[in-house]
Amino acid sequence: MEILKQRILKEGICLPGNILKVDSFLNHQIDPQLIFAMGSEFTQRFADEKIDKVVTVEASGIAVAMAVAAELGTKLVFARKSRSLLMEEDRYSCSVNSFTKKETNTVSILKKFLFPGERILIVDDFLANGNAALGLCNIVEQGGGKVRGIGIVIEKSFMDGATKIRNAGYRLESLVQVKSLAGGKIEFL
Amino acid sequence: MEILKQRILKEGICLPGNILKVDSFLNHQIDPQLIFAMGSEFTQRFADEKIDKVVTVEASGIAVAMAVAAELGTKLVFARKSRSLLMEEDRYSCSVNSFTKKETNTVSILKKFLFPGERILIVDDFLANGNAALGLCNIVEQGGGKVRGIGIVIEKSFMDGATKIRNAGYRLESLVQVKSLAGGKIEFL
Repeated sequence: MEILKQRILKEGICLPGNILKVDSFLNHQIDPQLIFAMGSEFTQRFADEKIDKVVTVEASGIAVAMAVAAELGTKLVFARKSRSLLMEEDRYSCSVNSFTKKETNTVSILKKFLFPGERILIVDDFLANGNAALGLCNIVEQGGGKVRGIGIVIEKSFMDGATKIRNAGYRLESLVQVKSLAGGKIEFL
Repeated sequence: MEILKQRILKEGICLPGNILKVDSFLNHQIDPQLIFAMGSEFTQRFADEKIDKVVTVEASGIAVAMAVAAELGTKLVFARKSRSLLMEEDRYSCSVNSFTKKETNTVSILKKFLFPGERILIVDDFLANGNAALGLCNIVEQGGGKVRGIGIVIEKSFMDGATKIRNAGYRLESLVQVKSLAGGKIEFL
């Protein structure tokens, strides 16, 4: 997605540890116009999948997921994070380790918002080690849903998340693929 | 806002302690169509305020704030929560006590996303004791911005947040005002 690449090159900031900050338009300040363009792009790419519901995780995935769900005409559900390890009976949960934040959260969705047989599109802002996306797949499948695709805004292709997801048999669509952040220089695949 | 009242009566769940759960359309599962209707309503109500930017707090405020910002043609910024009490130099922070979650978080916005003189609309999903909204006002004003209004989806009018906000001189617009949740019955003003 060319306009996204240009925006990343213009506003993205590389930090030590292979961190790419895009907080001027994606995950702190948000540019709705760009987010809706992402929503349209995902909608086109997954047009043949007859999606019933969009699933993401708070907080940075919500804006993009809402743009996708609005265009698809579906609802969305965002998994909630908590540091609690209590598994409650009324929710599906999974433990997710965040690459960027170096912390482990339990993420969960209430059972009443996931149904057997639903065709689910998972949307998230970043893909690094794949833990968040695979955790969401696990939650959806606990509820009997079918993950029909995973839509990622920025894939860090130099990490193993994309390979893990494809090896697990899921369809992955990333709007941009970052090949390298070495030396503070952003290079795309 | 009549369609919102009907939706709350149909799907809202009262819990002990004056909690109103609306997680089927607002803050866990999200109905984009209803959220965009809220966005249009806020846009009309604040049409005369020449808003430059929308400010909210993660996570439940993001969807509504994005709908408002999209219609106003502005960007939005969502304040991030952390349990850390460290005040970093590059951000404006405020301590906020949550009525529903019974916990205190530091919420903050990076200084580079707030400018002196900007006309700010604050948007949030619930208003109870007013701490979150007043905390956001404080953060905006630390950056020299002007709070031109506070837009709330559901005001709990039996609590003191609305009075505190109006007494502090802010313009408050709530889409629905809940008069009472006594006995598990939802009554509007």
